[in-house]
Amino acid sequence: MQRAIELAKNGIHSCKPNPRVGCVIVKNDIVIGEGWHKKTGGDHAEIMALKSCEDSPEGSSVFVSLEPCTHKGRTPPCIDSLINAKVSSVIFSSMDPNPKVSGKSIKLLETAGIEVSHGLLEEDSQELNIGFFNRMRANKPFVRSKIGSSLDGKIALHNGESKWITSEESRKDVQNLRARSCAIMTSNQTVLRDDPSLNVRLDNFSSDDQPLRIVIDSTGKCGGNEKIFHLPGETLLHHHRVDQSFLEHLGSMEINDLLVESGPRMNGALLESGLIDELIIYMSPCILGKDAIDMFAFPAIEKLSDRYSFVIRDLKTIGTDMKLTLRKNNV
Amino acid sequence: MQRAIELAKNGIHSCKPNPRVGCVIVKNDIVIGEGWHKKTGGDHAEIMALKSCEDSPEGSSVFVSLEPCTHKGRTPPCIDSLINAKVSSVIFSSMDPNPKVSGKSIKLLETAGIEVSHGLLEEDSQELNIGFFNRMRANKPFVRSKIGSSLDGKIALHNGESKWITSEESRKDVQNLRARSCAIMTSNQTVLRDDPSLNVRLDNFSSDDQPLRIVIDSTGKCGGNEKIFHLPGETLLHHHRVDQSFLEHLGSMEINDLLVESGPRMNGALLESGLIDELIIYMSPCILGKDAIDMFAFPAIEKLSDRYSFVIRDLKTIGTDMKLTLRKNNV
Repeated sequence: MQRAIELAKNGIHSCKPNPRVGCVIVKNDIVIGEGWHKKTGGDHAEIMALKSCEDSPEGSSVFVSLEPCTHKGRTPPCIDSLINAKVSSVIFSSMDPNPKVSGKSIKLLETAGIEVSHGLLEEDSQELNIGFFNRMRANKPFVRSKIGSSLDGKIALHNGESKWITSEESRKDVQNLRARSCAIMTSNQTVLRDDPSLNVRLDNFSSDDQPLRIVIDSTGKCGGNEKIFHLPGETLLHHHRVDQSFLEHLGSMEINDLLVESGPRMNGALLESGLIDELIIYMSPCILGKDAIDMFAFPAIEKLSDRYSFVIRDLKTIGTDMKLTLRKNNV
Repeated sequence: MQRAIELAKNGIHSCKPNPRVGCVIVKNDIVIGEGWHKKTGGDHAEIMALKSCEDSPEGSSVFVSLEPCTHKGRTPPCIDSLINAKVSSVIFSSMDPNPKVSGKSIKLLETAGIEVSHGLLEEDSQELNIGFFNRMRANKPFVRSKIGSSLDGKIALHNGESKWITSEESRKDVQNLRARSCAIMTSNQTVLRDDPSLNVRLDNFSSDDQPLRIVIDSTGKCGGNEKIFHLPGETLLHHHRVDQSFLEHLGSMEINDLLVESGPRMNGALLESGLIDELIIYMSPCILGKDAIDMFAFPAIEKLSDRYSFVIRDLKTIGTDMKLTLRKNNV
């Protein structure tokens, strides 16, 4: 299953809005086929693995990182192919997160005389598809805010100078965050001040896969001449503030992972509304002092019990910086 | 040598201002004696190890984490005891950092027909005694500033509320930082606002070993009734600001490790003067917002190139917090 999850990661940048899935087929203790889901509309992992088999899959065990699909979507259901291939057992990691589908495959496979089990490395396969799971369960994307800061929590000097607080390695890592996201959201202030591209600039990244860019411009300040509106891919200009219903709208647009790259005001507002699921902070070990610009702006809080708390998910060094991954308390 | 350094750590809280030293005596591949330096004026590690030998140390190999002393200080020189014991070789980790003494033992041992080598795990043994090495080389203590902060670099709310931002585990860890320090320094503002004890409250920690407490009170605001002046151990009240010459004065008082536990103004001033060698930040994954109080206060900087930079030495989670250990660029 470890291998199936590793294979699934091959699709991390390309298979959205579908989940990342990997599949390994084993017969007589030998791997006879492997596959992963590359692209929406293309073969699912199970089909790719069946097609790759060096031996007949009859009687084999199929390890797949997500419950095989039972319905016809953009491609025929994988369940039929597994049954037709006469495999003897199917082991999948996590159930389909869609409550209407979840668990349906078990009955179908068992009826066909195929042994089924699930739950192996479930947390890993869900983590890989956290945005997809979130959308299926809550009808909205997983919201990840990325911030580059100093050790003392500043994102720029008081005069606005901010190029570059974090190291080249950190900035390169941000490209991976973008590439795995379905959309990247920012504010009109950021667009007007920095004129950012917010696109993915990675080798071998197809310009067809560029995440949707979203600019929140409730005061209508953007003129439309800014760089972001003229790059390959799409840019959505939203004239209201970000709230639960806008996130649900993005969910209906099949946005799994939403990356926020914005300033203190948008981050402060999202934090106050409880809409940030994950914070990724690239923190440079430097100090800018009290006059520099803070990462979050919101009205002063009066009691420590009103602070906004997260839990540490991961902590590592990257280049000369630290990369902190923090989750909302209940995520 | 690894074992000798492990043994040396036994003295981390008690042997100051002497360096922490451990010693292992090996004969025919069997450890026949071990020792470590517990207390200034008591046996050095080598003597303790020789005394503990289960077999005659004649012909043995002696592993010691610091160059054996060659001069009579509070105790007779260890070199004489090693020569008298007719050991056949001495392997020490780092040389005596005192430039006047450094390397002297080599000649004496070789003259006595004892094989000598050094340099094994040198970085580890120096790191364990970083304050002692700093004092020997620069005539001033190693200055370590400890700060408890939020993720956005705040140490208290705008109204001063700060109990407790960090977790119990972090606060307990601070006791170890205090216990390994020769002195703990704070400002009159901190004394007047928080009335802190700044003493070590660990089981088995002798009240005779309490670090010196230093209060910087250049404006003469402390009345003398504050708790800090009435606890077991000594408190030094200094009526001028902290500068290089004050640190040299502390060096002459045999202060190896100086722990700063103070507010934004003292930390800002020390940072500006380049006097902070190490920052230890206990960072809680919570956000207090822009109106809360910053960890460092100093006049605004106008260019990113003027920021204060550190390098990451260690990064880990502690309780629900992060513990960041950062060194001045050139330390």
